[in-house]
Amino acid sequence: MTEPLRITSRQNERVKRAVRLRDRRGRKRQRRFLIDGRRELHRAVVAGIAIDEIFLCESLCQPAEMGPIGAMLDATAAEVMHVTEHVFARLAFGARAEGLVGVARTPPRSLADLRLPECPLVAVIEGAEKPGNVGAVLRSADGAGVDAVVLADGRTDLFHPAVVRASLGTLFHIPVCEATSQSTCAWLDRQGLAVLTASPEATRLYTDVDYRPGTAVVLGSEATGLSTAWKRVGPTAIRLPQQGMADSLNVSVAAAVIFYEAFRQRASPLQGEGGLQGIF
Amino acid sequence: MTEPLRITSRQNERVKRAVRLRDRRGRKRQRRFLIDGRRELHRAVVAGIAIDEIFLCESLCQPAEMGPIGAMLDATAAEVMHVTEHVFARLAFGARAEGLVGVARTPPRSLADLRLPECPLVAVIEGAEKPGNVGAVLRSADGAGVDAVVLADGRTDLFHPAVVRASLGTLFHIPVCEATSQSTCAWLDRQGLAVLTASPEATRLYTDVDYRPGTAVVLGSEATGLSTAWKRVGPTAIRLPQQGMADSLNVSVAAAVIFYEAFRQRASPLQGEGGLQGIF
Repeated sequence: MTEPLRITSRQNERVKRAVRLRDRRGRKRQRRFLIDGRRELHRAVVAGIAIDEIFLCESLCQPAEMGPIGAMLDATAAEVMHVTEHVFARLAFGARAEGLVGVARTPPRSLADLRLPECPLVAVIEGAEKPGNVGAVLRSADGAGVDAVVLADGRTDLFHPAVVRASLGTLFHIPVCEATSQSTCAWLDRQGLAVLTASPEATRLYTDVDYRPGTAVVLGSEATGLSTAWKRVGPTAIRLPQQGMADSLNVSVAAAVIFYEAFRQRASPLQGEGGLQGIF
Repeated sequence: MTEPLRITSRQNERVKRAVRLRDRRGRKRQRRFLIDGRRELHRAVVAGIAIDEIFLCESLCQPAEMGPIGAMLDATAAEVMHVTEHVFARLAFGARAEGLVGVARTPPRSLADLRLPECPLVAVIEGAEKPGNVGAVLRSADGAGVDAVVLADGRTDLFHPAVVRASLGTLFHIPVCEATSQSTCAWLDRQGLAVLTASPEATRLYTDVDYRPGTAVVLGSEATGLSTAWKRVGPTAIRLPQQGMADSLNVSVAAAVIFYEAFRQRASPLQGEGGLQGIF
């Protein structure tokens, strides 16, 4: 076994190349992205994401953590490089990197790659600007058992480090892809999914629709709402009752409430309330 | 009308006093707290929070915003001080302060001050460490129409600037207070509320309880869960079904899903499913 490479300079080429992955352009050019943090990296490894390099700062890893980290590192073909705290501070993002930053190959993912079960529940996030919100919606979608998430016309990309981090690595667990709103519409149509658009202006409550057939829930950004692209698939607009101040719900919270209502309905198919009659 | 005071030095006593309010100890001593941001400040004014001082950095306020801000300032008895960008950078927290920081008097709020309607829905957050999470739960609670929120044995305080900010000012809209877990238990008991404790280890699903009587939902911190204090009130432990990776839901998301299930049940009293039989 050879000794791991030790890097002490911020001018090291490998370090500089990795730092460029903080920018969307760098991610696109290199077709690679960064994973900050132990848990996130572990989840990527488990999900079969190809990790090229891992930058490890031993003085920032708790000794007790080195055992599990070692086992995780053994499970990847990644080259492990030891870096000083000074170098690590350039590579890492925020406080949660825990002494580990991985460089992974961006998995090529398109609508055609999404394998759906029968009667799937799909989430579409349109025009997302804040990577933290995208990550939080992914986390909610994973918890609620959503079958796939599409980022449509995203103004951030799926593999932004802040998406990875806010998703706590659930990004690697749930089938996801990026697409234009237009191609997403065509795809939803081909899949025969009923399309629900979440909108504060809708008259119908989110509890008053039937989520048991194959369903796509389309969520817009908090600032601008949804584009008109969805009109061609004849969507049903739904809203959450907002009791407090206007705009008081975060998009990941609203998404989770809708996903869990879908889950509730799907778990208890014998009820027959509200708009749900007619199937049994 | 006199000209507003102009402050150009970070060593100004008023500025130094206000900066101390970033710390919990300073807030406790002065019985005052900071409000960053236009929307948050506006919501505080509307809610009748007493604002003592407002530090305004004109170069950071968009001209279009000065109209509404002026009207808002007129509605308070606050002393408005103009500060330079250099001074403002010391006072403000993060990017969302939008050229305005207010100093407000901490409203004295205890369990005895909470006025509840009949059959209230109350949320209790125990042992919260992250102010951002407390703010996010307040935002969810406000959206879902929760009647009051108690911060029990909090390791952060309600008027932490990050709570104010993450709550988007809903903190001022919803009845809130801080208390010990023990006194909260006694209070819940006196109010005759059914106590539901959210716990990943619970066997009962959150959809399988009746939220129509007066109910308190107790949420623990993501890290440590709930203390044993609640046992004396004979709580029912409930859980959300987690489909994805373990620990994938944020506490404010889990809270919102539970609050909205309560709202759904309360809005449609004629259904009779799952564990809800026997009332009608």
